[in-house]
Amino acid sequence: MDKFFAVAVAEARKGMATGGIPIGSVLVIDGQIVGRGHNQRVQRGSVVLHAEMDCLENAGRIKAADYRRATLYSTLSPCDMCSGAVLLYGIPRVVIGENRTFCGPEDYMRSQGVEVVVVDSEECRQLMERFIEENPELWNEDIGE
Amino acid sequence: MDKFFAVAVAEARKGMATGGIPIGSVLVIDGQIVGRGHNQRVQRGSVVLHAEMDCLENAGRIKAADYRRATLYSTLSPCDMCSGAVLLYGIPRVVIGENRTFCGPEDYMRSQGVEVVVVDSEECRQLMERFIEENPELWNEDIGE
Repeated sequence: MDKFFAVAVAEARKGMATGGIPIGSVLVIDGQIVGRGHNQRVQRGSVVLHAEMDCLENAGRIKAADYRRATLYSTLSPCDMCSGAVLLYGIPRVVIGENRTFCGPEDYMRSQGVEVVVVDSEECRQLMERFIEENPELWNEDIGE
Repeated sequence: MDKFFAVAVAEARKGMATGGIPIGSVLVIDGQIVGRGHNQRVQRGSVVLHAEMDCLENAGRIKAADYRRATLYSTLSPCDMCSGAVLLYGIPRVVIGENRTFCGPEDYMRSQGVEVVVVDSEECRQLMERFIEENPELWNEDIGE
């Protein structure tokens, strides 16, 4: 497994261990992790800190030119909001753990020039399937349904 | 002026008064303000708390059915990230102060069923024009350029 993707999975597991939704994310620039995070709906009562947003926030204020060399990893297909953040900052590459339990606007990101890679990780899918089965209301809240 | 839009402008001015980017936002459901906020890049060093996101975060965890009756006001045309948040939560109506100094993906929101109203406020435009002229680097950072 890609070592950065493994860190995203570790973030998802950290989120689960702290009572939250098991989605993790990592931002990598020039082979270095500059931010990592996980969904904070439960832990911080946040409606904006999806894993990708928590990761971007933890990475802090980065120059536009640096975002342009970044890869954003997420264990789950990014939603409209998180995909929009990718477009806002011009992040050129997104690596997604799985998109079977939820699929965001991947084609829209591609149409805007983003390279979208789907790992189709069995581990990520199982994490989400178990969580959704046990917490359907929380999950629906997180995706606005 | 629409009384809710006036609150969004007041939020933009509050943001400016605290040294930040003068963009404000209000979330209204059933004729009641349920959240308000302003851009927090300077004040909190945030890369995700654009005015609309700060407003949604301050509104807290809201039921999907309630978002479906909401109107989001913003003094400036929402960027890709904030427009994505509108789509994520199924907010059906967005009222925008102005889109001359910056224009987000309004047509994309419309294509996804969102009603987008542009007030074309001279006051909002002047606020942004002055800010951008005096703080071009900060402004470019906020829009990922």
